[in-house]
Amino acid sequence: MLKIVPLGGLGEIGLNMMVVEYKESMIIIDAGLMFPEDYMLGVDLVIPDMEYIRQNKSRISGVILTHAHEDHIGALAFLLREVNVPVYGTPFTLGVVRYKLEEYGMLPSVSLQEIRPDTLLRVGDFEIDIIRVSHSVVDGIALAIHTPLGLIVHTGDFKISHTGVSGMTTDVNKFARCGEEGVLALLSDSTNVEKEGYTISDNEVGETLKDIFAKSSGRVIVALFSSSISRIQQIVDIAAARGNRLVFNGRSIEVSVRIAKELGYLSIPDDMEIDIRQVGNFPDRNVVIITTGSQGEPMSALARMATGIHKQIRIRHGDTVVLSSKFIPGNEKAIANIINNLYRRGADVIYEKISAIHVSGHAFREELKLMISLTQPRYFIPIHGEYRHLVLHARLAEEMGIPRSDVILIEDGQSVEFDADGVRTGEKVPTGRVLVDGKGIGDVGRCILKERRALSEDGFVAVTLALDEETGIVMYGPEITSRGFVFENETGHLLDDAICVILEIIEDITPDVPGRLEKIRSRVKSDLRKYFNFTIKRRPVILPFILEV
Amino acid sequence: MLKIVPLGGLGEIGLNMMVVEYKESMIIIDAGLMFPEDYMLGVDLVIPDMEYIRQNKSRISGVILTHAHEDHIGALAFLLREVNVPVYGTPFTLGVVRYKLEEYGMLPSVSLQEIRPDTLLRVGDFEIDIIRVSHSVVDGIALAIHTPLGLIVHTGDFKISHTGVSGMTTDVNKFARCGEEGVLALLSDSTNVEKEGYTISDNEVGETLKDIFAKSSGRVIVALFSSSISRIQQIVDIAAARGNRLVFNGRSIEVSVRIAKELGYLSIPDDMEIDIRQVGNFPDRNVVIITTGSQGEPMSALARMATGIHKQIRIRHGDTVVLSSKFIPGNEKAIANIINNLYRRGADVIYEKISAIHVSGHAFREELKLMISLTQPRYFIPIHGEYRHLVLHARLAEEMGIPRSDVILIEDGQSVEFDADGVRTGEKVPTGRVLVDGKGIGDVGRCILKERRALSEDGFVAVTLALDEETGIVMYGPEITSRGFVFENETGHLLDDAICVILEIIEDITPDVPGRLEKIRSRVKSDLRKYFNFTIKRRPVILPFILEV
Repeated sequence: MLKIVPLGGLGEIGLNMMVVEYKESMIIIDAGLMFPEDYMLGVDLVIPDMEYIRQNKSRISGVILTHAHEDHIGALAFLLREVNVPVYGTPFTLGVVRYKLEEYGMLPSVSLQEIRPDTLLRVGDFEIDIIRVSHSVVDGIALAIHTPLGLIVHTGDFKISHTGVSGMTTDVNKFARCGEEGVLALLSDSTNVEKEGYTISDNEVGETLKDIFAKSSGRVIVALFSSSISRIQQIVDIAAARGNRLVFNGRSIEVSVRIAKELGYLSIPDDMEIDIRQVGNFPDRNVVIITTGSQGEPMSALARMATGIHKQIRIRHGDTVVLSSKFIPGNEKAIANIINNLYRRGADVIYEKISAIHVSGHAFREELKLMISLTQPRYFIPIHGEYRHLVLHARLAEEMGIPRSDVILIEDGQSVEFDADGVRTGEKVPTGRVLVDGKGIGDVGRCILKERRALSEDGFVAVTLALDEETGIVMYGPEITSRGFVFENETGHLLDDAICVILEIIEDITPDVPGRLEKIRSRVKSDLRKYFNFTIKRRPVILPFILEV
Repeated sequence: MLKIVPLGGLGEIGLNMMVVEYKESMIIIDAGLMFPEDYMLGVDLVIPDMEYIRQNKSRISGVILTHAHEDHIGALAFLLREVNVPVYGTPFTLGVVRYKLEEYGMLPSVSLQEIRPDTLLRVGDFEIDIIRVSHSVVDGIALAIHTPLGLIVHTGDFKISHTGVSGMTTDVNKFARCGEEGVLALLSDSTNVEKEGYTISDNEVGETLKDIFAKSSGRVIVALFSSSISRIQQIVDIAAARGNRLVFNGRSIEVSVRIAKELGYLSIPDDMEIDIRQVGNFPDRNVVIITTGSQGEPMSALARMATGIHKQIRIRHGDTVVLSSKFIPGNEKAIANIINNLYRRGADVIYEKISAIHVSGHAFREELKLMISLTQPRYFIPIHGEYRHLVLHARLAEEMGIPRSDVILIEDGQSVEFDADGVRTGEKVPTGRVLVDGKGIGDVGRCILKERRALSEDGFVAVTLALDEETGIVMYGPEITSRGFVFENETGHLLDDAICVILEIIEDITPDVPGRLEKIRSRVKSDLRKYFNFTIKRRPVILPFILEV
């Protein structure tokens, strides 16, 4: 029996991770993270629940990474702590992985195995053909997994691009050959199924960039994702043709560029690159700066330029700033702030909303149709998307002639089993989102988040009060301390009256009342809650520190 | 001297409020709120700083409202507490204002003055022509303010719509007459200056809606802004033609519909409306539900349907849900969640990204150009937008032939003065954002938000410890309490060790050390901070409650 088990990325954007198993052999495709949602207060990142991996440790032969984005490799270090198996990836993907594992101090103990398109990979009982796909990061791949029951095609993240950097365009012929051979199941990227038509070509973006450079009379500053190596190459080529000097600014971009250069994925003419401290030595129109911060990250190089606290770069009239990337939902306000501030400093700003200076890395509807046409699958499983994306992709497959019964709409944890009789949904395996906060993995859950939420909305009011153990008379306090509640300099009246509320409670509950301390505690909580709700309509967390000494 | 003073809405979306003054006479245009940004933890709403109003109380003759959206009327109650002047507005605008003032208990003391397009309004020394404009709420107006120095045209929020509900389309002829008369300054809505071309017509949206109704075989549930009365009329007309029954669900929609019906802005055939409890008495294909919740608001009717906790409506296969509104930035994730959950319950969901079921209420670039062409202003001041919108709108005006020196790019607080010699920027007046939290107005500021932020990310750890005043020995504790920090059931080891850290401090700082208590307090703070940062890489707020008894 052949089994496919999605552990993340089906029913959500991010957390991509999938298990494919046949008899005793098991491989993992990708190990991605997700950036925390707004309500996950204080959480650094989110990884998939690895319970199913732990349960099947001994059967796992390796993990294959389709490309170097965080939502596909960001949970790798956490996965490898559970099960130290070989990691397969293309040169750029492994370059990024190597850097990250080094940061975690894990590099020496991990086996990294380089794969390339057109090499046939054997992992466990599987033979896997690597297929080149075009995506917004270089060196992305799809997988054609040969199994005794048939061929499984997993697209990874892809778009069809006929005019990208040579050797990096989607290998449509190889997908077509899969189709001829016969594909049991196609698992295809659903991210952009809401978008009609085709992605615009990289060449078109290149032409727009050329135009912007031609019109600019001063420095050009381009912000983009550090992984956008092909876009960086386009900019390098345009800038080189103009005889410009080039600066890379921001750690993630410097790392990414270094890896790409070492591997020959990025070529920069000698003497073109200068140090950021040399920028002032060249005429403005000769300076191009490629920087981080396209998502409005508050401490990024671009954010520092926009707020005027960047060490070397002062934005001024004549500068052209290009945000060559998507506005990821949730980041729009931060990005908009940066754009506003750049305008306030006199720069001209060009961004996705007003110019075609970005193209998505995920296939639009027509490209998704092409993938189905090329591979002619018996069964279709939409992957990588929120539930609505999976539904719309499933419908698209039906429109393409795949019978509804052969389109399999599943979410994380729902396994699918293939055997000689056909396909069926199998057991549900444990899945979920594990929150990583600092060094803590999974110790922040619903209850802690609820507490953080309450504290974040109205702060707290703490009452300190010590009573004599024997006589019950007040030895200390009541004293009130608050944080995040009301302005300290204006609370005199409000908090003085709150102390009266507490004194009344102490008088009410006389020393002879059994369980006095507990009773005072609970009255302080409830009476103060009522008091603050009535006077100021807020509900701070009330903390009674009431002790007997 | 004629003076224009923007108090909100220039350099931001929302908070729209402007003062126009000539000699001793002063009028206010709009009094809008802004919904809190993410970082304004716990804040309910934001209003403009009214300091300038307070300083000029005696000169203010009235406030004129351009339309009934919260970003134009939401701060009115707060304004009227500062200065109780007559409020001018069209019937629907006043209908909504009346309802809101009643909620605040302020209605009896406020003078509401109804105005209509084509009535000439006199307020203070000003004569004002009211001009009908089309917007996403009915009964919107622009103002043509006659002053001895010339005509000031303030567009309010507008789009050009030739096919909207009759009597509610933008009165282009009247703007043209202003142009013929001679316009000193045009103040025009910049919100959609990033959008090329024209807004699609309301008729087109109507056709799409008709299509959706025609294809649906079950109930149709439409979520929209409660103020979208024209859209509601379109849906009523489509549903009536099909002989459907209609339910309004959600308080804000019920209020808005009641006001619109009373004023004759919405006409619904007799017997068409049914109570939500009667829904089950009619065949699914005869039921249309118009509901709140198009922005993903967590407790809205639609959110309750999506999560299956709505009292009367269970979403099921065959239902078609239409989100006929924009995804406002910041709300996308909440809306996406609702869409996903509706799909999971079997409904078909139609939303802006995949269908033209919404049109913006703000003019696109070609419409903005038309406004400039019609009014032929001497000076141009872009209003209503973030800074980048104002810059792009200023540039658009320049492209239209207005000399750069006559395009006035200002933000909140920067006054502009006109006299016989021309125009200049004048004094800067106090402005800002006042946060309203519960009944507290302005008592939540940067410091409180910073405290809330710290608490929201890592919670707090409180240490309770009582020492004998004379001997210095420990009478109680050290006891540790935490909230929002780590799971209680897994903290044993971590917090036990923290107690050891505290005991060491007490031993270190012996009873004879002067200022012992204060020293222990500060060491507890710093040592625990280091300890938690080292062990778990978190930085909870540390609260030492250390007392002498």
